[in-house]
Parts: sequence; structure tokens; C-alpha cells
Amino acid sequence: MLSERRILMAHGSGGRLSRELTEEVFLPAFDNAVLRRLDDSAAVWIGQTRLAFTTDSFVVQPLFFPGGDIGKLAVCGTVNDLAMSGAEPLYLSAAFVIEEGLPLADLRRVVQSMRDASAEAGVTIVTGDTKVVERGKADGLYVTTAGVGLLPEPSYLSGAAGRPGDVVLVSGTLGDHGIAVISQREGLAFQTELHSDCAPLNGLVDVMLRASSQVHVLRDPTRGGLATALNEIADQSSVSIQIDERSLPVRDEVRAACEMLGFDLLYVANEGKLIALVAADDAERVLAAMRSHPYGRNAALIGRVKPDQPGRVTMRALLGGTRIVGMPAGELLPRIC
Amino acid sequence: MLSERRILMAHGSGGRLSRELTEEVFLPAFDNAVLRRLDDSAAVWIGQTRLAFTTDSFVVQPLFFPGGDIGKLAVCGTVNDLAMSGAEPLYLSAAFVIEEGLPLADLRRVVQSMRDASAEAGVTIVTGDTKVVERGKADGLYVTTAGVGLLPEPSYLSGAAGRPGDVVLVSGTLGDHGIAVISQREGLAFQTELHSDCAPLNGLVDVMLRASSQVHVLRDPTRGGLATALNEIADQSSVSIQIDERSLPVRDEVRAACEMLGFDLLYVANEGKLIALVAADDAERVLAAMRSHPYGRNAALIGRVKPDQPGRVTMRALLGGTRIVGMPAGELLPRIC
Repeated sequence: MLSERRILMAHGSGGRLSRELTEEVFLPAFDNAVLRRLDDSAAVWIGQTRLAFTTDSFVVQPLFFPGGDIGKLAVCGTVNDLAMSGAEPLYLSAAFVIEEGLPLADLRRVVQSMRDASAEAGVTIVTGDTKVVERGKADGLYVTTAGVGLLPEPSYLSGAAGRPGDVVLVSGTLGDHGIAVISQREGLAFQTELHSDCAPLNGLVDVMLRASSQVHVLRDPTRGGLATALNEIADQSSVSIQIDERSLPVRDEVRAACEMLGFDLLYVANEGKLIALVAADDAERVLAAMRSHPYGRNAALIGRVKPDQPGRVTMRALLGGTRIVGMPAGELLPRIC
Repeated sequence: MLSERRILMAHGSGGRLSRELTEEVFLPAFDNAVLRRLDDSAAVWIGQTRLAFTTDSFVVQPLFFPGGDIGKLAVCGTVNDLAMSGAEPLYLSAAFVIEEGLPLADLRRVVQSMRDASAEAGVTIVTGDTKVVERGKADGLYVTTAGVGLLPEPSYLSGAAGRPGDVVLVSGTLGDHGIAVISQREGLAFQTELHSDCAPLNGLVDVMLRASSQVHVLRDPTRGGLATALNEIADQSSVSIQIDERSLPVRDEVRAACEMLGFDLLYVANEGKLIALVAADDAERVLAAMRSHPYGRNAALIGRVKPDQPGRVTMRALLGGTRIVGMPAGELLPRIC
């Protein structure tokens, strides 16, 4: 596919072309064992300390949407990538590429919301950078955050740690972020206003890991949605995953919006949800812990992990029958994160 | 000045408006002692380890210029920010915001050059992110790197550690990067091709710190040039700094280009040079160490630190007389880093 010779929007979708870009351009050049794991954050030793380190750029349009803005997204996104590796998120960096002419009030609002999200997550923004580009570039503002956190040792959480017999849990309703942003962009109005689920999940992870030592995989199904996250995990862990459509928690408004707009819910981004692969024995215990936390109230068991056909994700459909849930091939919802 | 209510190009120049933006928007919101130090990188404890952490976005135009490209710049910039705090640079993150339509060959070339610069600096790129934005945005490519390094403890290097009696050293010729980029952009041709000085300086710092325990301040005079770096140091250390124009190492072509283009050399960016404030006793020893290193061959003593008029930087001019060297007030050379 890279024979197309130019970057396409789909290379940024989190789907198949994103993975190809990573595998054909970035991995061979930067070749090293840490990067090759393709987990949400890198685990490295510095001195006697085991560190998690991660980064994400945010280019969402519009900058402000119901339930959040680019600043909240940038802080939560990086906090969550650290939390998914089992790390305690501690320090963030924030780099701003600002378009000439951006109202200062907008920048202040974004920065304020980064402050609030950092306070909620218990992290500190300790270093940063600002660049300004000419009018017409950068859509107002791009924000890139990086984060470091303390990893317990031994750290066993990884996308590669899923095992046959595990169950698949999700922390709440699916698709809220992507549909909230796209609705705002398209000027769609729903009877009930849709809000992004954007939230820091380190507190939720904390109660889960306290409840059980058999949480094997954590991942936040952001860009590319549930389908992409499950495919990545199935691939990394060499297992198959079967989910059940009936068990997926979805808001009625989100389901309606997906039907109206022609989106497959499984591929819509979430910014305050996580998936967990947990040993079946501990499923009820972990679910109870999740439901005790504000960000896990609607947690549900949505599927099971099997040994056959490694890498395959399937879904038992509402109306019967089973379908393959693949990696997204093309562009989904651009600029939602 | 912030009553102008909109972001100006000069807010990204590294000069006075950049500082105002930091002091009026970022510092009050993200208020914490580490950020307030305004050093090139943040020093934080993680577990038992003292860590340096830094980030920079790169938006240079054009992406490729004599002596480097945006990728080399991104790696060296972050390596150097870590090195200036006395840290051993270890791991980098790299986040790419790519414009739809960028030739894949360009991306490969940038990535290759990041690989080469990382190898030279002895750092590993362990985590990353890719976003794609629509055609017409992002000028081909923006790159944001963050880096972590190991800080020796006690770590005494800081922009605030300059003392009266120190001398000011510079590691080589000034202005090479800024003039190389602007020449490429304007299609200017010189008899001798100008090359950016873009280089990782951690090796040079290493020989300097081995030579003397009286190196007090290190800083790389990037955006805003020598004048901005010296003003920041004079301010942080509450000292005045006097430099001597005759002693400044400058290539003839760079001097000629500055005259032709109307740039003040003192404000032109460097990407492979450092300034050091060192106790006068150890000046010769440190200079000799610098000159023994490929990136310090043209090192020179360019000034002295005084106790009076804290925050002031002055220059004894070539033609006699002394002038105040202020922070740049407006836009200098946009998009050179």
C-alpha cells in the first residue's frame, strides 16, 4: 500500500494504513526492542527506576466540543497511555503549535482545561514549548503531550499478555467521544446533547489492579475504536477474541447517531474508556471494582479470549450469526483526537 | 502586550513576547516549582532516580536545508536540552503531524536522519505517534520530540547558577543554522555553501564537565540566538553579562549574509552550539577541553559576568563604545526551528 507514495488521511486513522506506516517506515529505522512491542507506552530502565514513557499529538477539530477540548484530550490521552501500562502517571510535557491569529482567550481556555485535567489525574506539567505558524496552518492549535510514569517491577501488563480463557471487559459506553466531536463539527443536534467521555483513567486502573492480580491487558480504545484495540491485542497476544454485540454498552443517542451518519460503532473513538483482558476467575471481582468507580459505572463483560485462529476478532451479532471484525482499512473519522 | 488578544508570529520567536506568553498564560495555570525554573529541561524525581525531561516542537521551513533537516533538528534539539542540564540523554519520543500528500520518500528521509542523529547521540527513540491533517495544513510535517535523561545528583547546572567572576564561553561560530535555513528558503546563493551547525552536543558537554567542576551554566542559543540566551541567563542568575564583539567567532559568509539580509547576528539561531558560564580559574582548562572535541574546535571566550545591574547584557562594539543587548521584541526569523 505504501506504493501509493504519498501520505493519505487514512495513514492517520489508527487502522491498517497507520500500522503499515509504523511497520514499514518507523520500526525499521528506529529499530529497537522497546518500540517493537507497540504498547501504549514504552517501558525503560533509567538508573534503578523502571519508567513508562509515551507521547501523542492532538489535532482535533473543532478545538472545543461538548465534554472537553483539545487540552483536556491531550492531558487525558497521555495519562491514559501511561495508566494502560500499569504505570503511575507523574509528569507531563506540553508542546503547542499555535496558528497566528488564534484568540488568546481560546489558548487560555485550553491551558485552563489542561490544568484541571492534570489536577484530577494527579500529574504535573513540568516542561513545554511554544511555536507559532502562519495563519491558515495548524487549525488554531495542535498540542503534543509526552508523559513519564513510575512502573512497578515486575510489570506484567502488556498487549501481549492476553491468554485463552480471559474475559474481555469494557469500562462503559462506547463511541461517546467520536460522535460528540463529529456532531459538533457537522452542526448536528440531538434531543439529548452528546458529551465526549474524555477522562483520566488512572484512578479506575488503580482500583482494578488492587482488586485482582490477574488483569493481563489494559488498553484505551481511542482512534480506531474498540475494533482496532481488540485487533491489536489479538495480534500481540496471538489469541482470538470473540465479543457479543448484545453485551456492548451503548447510549441510545450514540447508536442513533451512528445509524444516521453511517458509522460502525466498533470503530468510533473513545477517550475515557478502557478494555481489560482478565482471567475469568477474577471477572466478577474486577467488574465490581470498576462499577464502584465513577468512570466504570457501566462496565460490562463483552467477550472471551480463545486459543484458535490467533489474531482474529469476531462478533456474535444481535440478529444472530458471527462476523469478522477487522482492522479498519481506510479513513474513519479524521481529526477526532 | 497580551491585550492584543490574538497570537502573533512574534509569540513564537523566543523573544520578549514568547516570554510574556509563558509568564502570563502557561506559568500561572501550570504553576509549579519545576516549570518556574524555566531551564532547558525539567529536573524531577521518579522513585530513587533524578530525571531530566524536556520537549520541543519543530516547524522549520523548508523541511530540508544544507546541513540537516527537520528530523535531525528534532533529535538534536531535544538531546541538547537534556545535555544543557547536565543530564545523560537516554530515550526520546517522536510525534509526527503529517500533511496529507507528503511524499513518502520525504518522510523516510526525515526518519532516516532521526535514526542517524539518535545513533550519533547514543539515544533511542522508544515511543511515538502519527497524525495526518488535511492538505494545506502543517507545511508537510511538524515533529515534536520529548526526551528523558539521567541527572547526576547533586545536579548543580542551571540558568540560575551563574556567578560574578564567571567567564562566558561559546563553543563555535555563531548564526550558521539560521542563515543556512533562511538562505535555502529565499533561494540565496553564496560563494561558499552555508551549512546548518545542527549537531548533538552531549559528547561536548561530557568532555567539559570532566575537565572542570566549575561549569555553572550551559545553554544552547537556539531560537532568539546568543542575545536571548544571555538575557535569560542574566535574568535567572541575577547578574550582568558583558561580551566583546571582537571575540565572537563568526564565519565570513554568515557575517556577509547578515549584512545583506539585515539580520543582527546576535539574534540568529544556532542548533549545534552552546554557551557556558565557567569560573574564571577554569576557563583555559574548559576551553582546551572544548577545542579537543569536533563540535568545539572554534570555542572562544567571549565575555564576563558581573554583579552590578542584574539582568543586563551589554556588548563592547567592534568600533568602540558599549551597547545594551536586549531581548528581541518582535519577530526575528520565523520557522527556522
